[in-house]
Amino acid sequence: MIISMQVGATHEQIEAVSDAIRQQGLEPLVLPGEDRTAIGVPSALSADQRDTLETIIGALEGVNKVTQTSRPYKLASTEFHRDKTIIDVKGVKIGHGHFVVMGGPCSVESHEQFSESARIVKQSGGTVLRGGAFKPRTSPYSFQGLQEEGLKIMKQVGEDAGLVTISEVMSGDMVGLVAKYVDILQIGARSMQNFPLLIEAGKSGKPVFLKRGPSATTDEFLLAAEYVLSQGNPNVILCERGVMAIDRSYTRNTLDLSIVPVLKEYSHLPVIVDPSHGTGVARYVGPMAKAALVAGADGVMIEMHPNPKKALSDGSQALTPEQYISLMTDLQGLARYLGRAS
Amino acid sequence: MIISMQVGATHEQIEAVSDAIRQQGLEPLVLPGEDRTAIGVPSALSADQRDTLETIIGALEGVNKVTQTSRPYKLASTEFHRDKTIIDVKGVKIGHGHFVVMGGPCSVESHEQFSESARIVKQSGGTVLRGGAFKPRTSPYSFQGLQEEGLKIMKQVGEDAGLVTISEVMSGDMVGLVAKYVDILQIGARSMQNFPLLIEAGKSGKPVFLKRGPSATTDEFLLAAEYVLSQGNPNVILCERGVMAIDRSYTRNTLDLSIVPVLKEYSHLPVIVDPSHGTGVARYVGPMAKAALVAGADGVMIEMHPNPKKALSDGSQALTPEQYISLMTDLQGLARYLGRAS
Amino acid sequence: MIISMQVGATHEQIEAVSDAIRQQGLEPLVLPGEDRTAIGVPSALSADQRDTLETIIGALEGVNKVTQTSRPYKLASTEFHRDKTIIDVKGVKIGHGHFVVMGGPCSVESHEQFSESARIVKQSGGTVLRGGAFKPRTSPYSFQGLQEEGLKIMKQVGEDAGLVTISEVMSGDMVGLVAKYVDILQIGARSMQNFPLLIEAGKSGKPVFLKRGPSATTDEFLLAAEYVLSQGNPNVILCERGVMAIDRSYTRNTLDLSIVPVLKEYSHLPVIVDPSHGTGVARYVGPMAKAALVAGADGVMIEMHPNPKKALSDGSQALTPEQYISLMTDLQGLARYLGRAS
Amino acid sequence: MIISMQVGATHEQIEAVSDAIRQQGLEPLVLPGEDRTAIGVPSALSADQRDTLETIIGALEGVNKVTQTSRPYKLASTEFHRDKTIIDVKGVKIGHGHFVVMGGPCSVESHEQFSESARIVKQSGGTVLRGGAFKPRTSPYSFQGLQEEGLKIMKQVGEDAGLVTISEVMSGDMVGLVAKYVDILQIGARSMQNFPLLIEAGKSGKPVFLKRGPSATTDEFLLAAEYVLSQGNPNVILCERGVMAIDRSYTRNTLDLSIVPVLKEYSHLPVIVDPSHGTGVARYVGPMAKAALVAGADGVMIEMHPNPKKALSDGSQALTPEQYISLMTDLQGLARYLGRAS
Repeated sequence: MIISMQVGATHEQIEAVSDAIRQQGLEPLVLPGEDRTAIGVPSALSADQRDTLETIIGALEGVNKVTQTSRPYKLASTEFHRDKTIIDVKGVKIGHGHFVVMGGPCSVESHEQFSESARIVKQSGGTVLRGGAFKPRTSPYSFQGLQEEGLKIMKQVGEDAGLVTISEVMSGDMVGLVAKYVDILQIGARSMQNFPLLIEAGKSGKPVFLKRGPSATTDEFLLAAEYVLSQGNPNVILCERGVMAIDRSYTRNTLDLSIVPVLKEYSHLPVIVDPSHGTGVARYVGPMAKAALVAGADGVMIEMHPNPKKALSDGSQALTPEQYISLMTDLQGLARYLGRAS
Repeated sequence: MIISMQVGATHEQIEAVSDAIRQQGLEPLVLPGEDRTAIGVPSALSADQRDTLETIIGALEGVNKVTQTSRPYKLASTEFHRDKTIIDVKGVKIGHGHFVVMGGPCSVESHEQFSESARIVKQSGGTVLRGGAFKPRTSPYSFQGLQEEGLKIMKQVGEDAGLVTISEVMSGDMVGLVAKYVDILQIGARSMQNFPLLIEAGKSGKPVFLKRGPSATTDEFLLAAEYVLSQGNPNVILCERGVMAIDRSYTRNTLDLSIVPVLKEYSHLPVIVDPSHGTGVARYVGPMAKAALVAGADGVMIEMHPNPKKALSDGSQALTPEQYISLMTDLQGLARYLGRAS
Repeated sequence: MIISMQVGATHEQIEAVSDAIRQQGLEPLVLPGEDRTAIGVPSALSADQRDTLETIIGALEGVNKVTQTSRPYKLASTEFHRDKTIIDVKGVKIGHGHFVVMGGPCSVESHEQFSESARIVKQSGGTVLRGGAFKPRTSPYSFQGLQEEGLKIMKQVGEDAGLVTISEVMSGDMVGLVAKYVDILQIGARSMQNFPLLIEAGKSGKPVFLKRGPSATTDEFLLAAEYVLSQGNPNVILCERGVMAIDRSYTRNTLDLSIVPVLKEYSHLPVIVDPSHGTGVARYVGPMAKAALVAGADGVMIEMHPNPKKALSDGSQALTPEQYISLMTDLQGLARYLGRAS
Repeated sequence: MIISMQVGATHEQIEAVSDAIRQQGLEPLVLPGEDRTAIGVPSALSADQRDTLETIIGALEGVNKVTQTSRPYKLASTEFHRDKTIIDVKGVKIGHGHFVVMGGPCSVESHEQFSESARIVKQSGGTVLRGGAFKPRTSPYSFQGLQEEGLKIMKQVGEDAGLVTISEVMSGDMVGLVAKYVDILQIGARSMQNFPLLIEAGKSGKPVFLKRGPSATTDEFLLAAEYVLSQGNPNVILCERGVMAIDRSYTRNTLDLSIVPVLKEYSHLPVIVDPSHGTGVARYVGPMAKAALVAGADGVMIEMHPNPKKALSDGSQALTPEQYISLMTDLQGLARYLGRAS
């Protein structure tokens, strides 16, 4: 931690900062220089010390800025966990060296629609089936999902097809219910900092698929993962799904593919990209899915609907079965070319 | 609703859109012209029709863009509820023509710290006392609040001082607990689209203080309010607390004061501004609080700590008691000058 | 300057950074600690050393992050120029303690339209008259201004009315032309980092009114001012005019009023706010202009048109004469209440 | 064009809008319905009519919102120019079906440094050599480039190596000078809306490489291209180089790869991606360059320095010769796999 003092900070102000550091049992290192003084704290800080110091020193007079010189996350960091995490869900491996596709409709709408979706996913070589039962919708007047009925359909269809299933859980008190039916718990972008939900998902021990919030920084994203990890659950999958767009008139969000190599460098967790929500436009999903693979993602999540024109939600971003199958062929070829297992 | 077709859209594509509209029992109005055709739907749409049409038509070929010509919220809108909402909480009026200050520390830390805070709020003419018991923290290693113990302190101190209390609730299943102890339920910025929470807060009937998410559009904000309102709870207070900053190195967020007149025009709900979180810097809180009043806000929420240097959270944005009392004097003078009741 | 090394950086990598610092004739201070080593450079750096070091060290292996502990601007900074700048333009004082209104139409359209504008500005107690002659327009097909003819009208009308004039200059080679006719050179938001223009405006010695770019950080803004100041021209006026909006559907930009106290703290230069471009909506101009005054701005720039319905550009954000005069009355009352000279 | 009236707009207000439309010689189409009335203008509008109407109607009472149903650019649009543009620069083809790499250092620093750069570019199969002579720098104290001396070096080295050259021009009055020495004129991100520069670059007839501004929407970007095209110069190359980042602590900008398929759909112009500025970090350049190719870009611009540790600018984002050559091999393999000519 480095504390930069204001230009003209008095000797007393510098001493007050040093005292605050000493009160935590640490040794301050005063660096007079340039136009201002900086004060370093070279020792290893516990999380508590780090937090307490930042709060206390931030309120002292003469302080210009407090800068952390280490990243705030630990369990999610490559620095403390050098081996890449590979998560095994019923034999499907997610992470380092594998490339997984999670396909299926935005919402589970009926047994017929969902089993047809599963058939297409399976036929095109897929292993993970997605579908929403509890739908977070911006408007209270939009279709909210089939809820538990949808989960039941998902469980049965997944088992029949031999596919791993993933569905969203929106609150901590529903983790138990959703975990009963599905293999991977999805935490949506709007819930990335729903801390009670993160904690319950952590306690469940189930694999957790965590989507980045639309304005979340990398540190905020990895700290959200840290909430799950710190409950003793190592099975966290990170998902980039687009950040706030400068321009919402051509795409719904801005898919931030450059976070893929960043996350792969700073964290050992698997990284998946969702180009369907990331762009919101079916015809951009293919190029972005392939770009994600090439950029180093461990997989993609793709929305497909047996009949997008009849979809109850997000029809404009869902691929048709033909488009989906064609994209799967492209991705498999590209993965082989790159020497990536799929 | 207006559907703009692509340039060169075929007659068949235009007909397919018209058919989709007719299937909802509505009449399409084809506007040939400029370089492309547009198709209007002039009838009144129910929420369901609106949503269904947008999804279905967005997936049709030849469609360039679907534009809604009316706003998606109803209950929150001035257009359908012309009288300004005034919420009465134990005799304290919030909304149109009144100016309220909600003051207190970031966190309830102890009975002593909190009752001292209450004394200062009361002494400076305040009516509402804030304080966090359950704290949403970006890092799992930060102080998480005193939890139920904090709520008990809050209730007792509030009653002793004769102040209305407000505290944050972070999940739907905790609404009952928090509602037992405090007068106003706060929903934080990170929870703005926690839909199960919005619904439970709606059902509780308690006044709900809803903070805008850091990248929420005005429509998304008012639709979040709509979730609460649609449960039959008319007591929603909107709070602007800063949006994602272009530059986090001088302020924590960008306080978007221009949303104040926008919200006052499009909605009848009370609008409060939180310059403490909005700037994250104690010395900018005063100017921004006064600017909020002048811009038309119905109140401000201000963090104050009896001793910011000892605060367990957010010390750098809390005012000292002296700064707080001085700001209260300024605000009261300004409110009088502007003819606003405080 | 602080260099944070990666966790696990080798002794050789740390030495390479130290060597690079020594090659600039400076002394590195190695701070082993926490999970990683940091290296401080406590001496005063010249701008050249600062820049060179950042570039060179950023390319070395094992380096995690280079952080500057001092701000990059000098001449614009309060730290090196403690007295607030007051600019005197033909007797009109701009800066510290004064509050100035710059009013007038978006574009100079005709002698009649502009002299009528001047009459209203003068009558309502104004001192500075604005109007565009060379108009930067997003589309090449939009009205581009009357150009030199507009400047001639401006000069004559300004002199007749006894008002100081301000108009935009869009390129370095036109500084001479515009400076011949107007009193203050305006540099638009899109030109904030047009460095050849900044340098020519600096050389002209004329007062320069510099608008913040729509995604400019505070440092970038003050460094743009630094370009003008470093040419020996101390007469720079800063203008906030709105940053990129999260939501363009209610306002054109997000007016960032919190930059007002930030700029007043870190710089000695006058700060003006333009709520007309900042919101893009006439009915929000008044509340935001008053909020700017209360937040500490040294003035506002307001668009007014004798007949907004006939305006050739930006009609939707221009006030009518009646609205303008009423706002001037409000601002003068508020300035008096606050003890600010107008 | 569609004008959406406010709910409760009066008959007189609706008539006033209709009259304004008729005064332009156009026929309004009134669509009563939903909660509000909309008014369509179905005829083909000239650019002037479009602009005039938007300005005038935006100022009328009772108007809620004016929406354009067609895109504002014409010459840049696929809708009016169906064939993809291929630009031939001294035999090097840029655009549709070709994949070009523009490589070289941030700045031309010396004949030796630049000819060594050229040798590496040539050896690895490259055709276009980049290098800055006039450098736009955020700080006036940073290295500003060798200026005309740099251009002379560039011209000689380019001719000796048989490479096409590209360098930045920062103002309209310098177009002639730069055009004398280099083959392609680069317009930087900060100059994207430097309209006098765009016009002069258009008049020069030289190929123009236009970088997207850090907060530019797609429409603003294509309208900037339209400025060049409307001068009769069809040789415009679009370049995505990263937009304003949510988080500047891991990458300098957010590279917006999803604009690649958007631009390829809506425009016929070639699209290049610059991952060096887009990320600002050498080790992310490779993954992002490959992702750009896969996403459909017509080429990439890559910074490489014979010795990044000695670079005078942007050393931290430049590849070493080894990294550059390795990336070229990867890109060529990937292009062959995808059936793209390089």
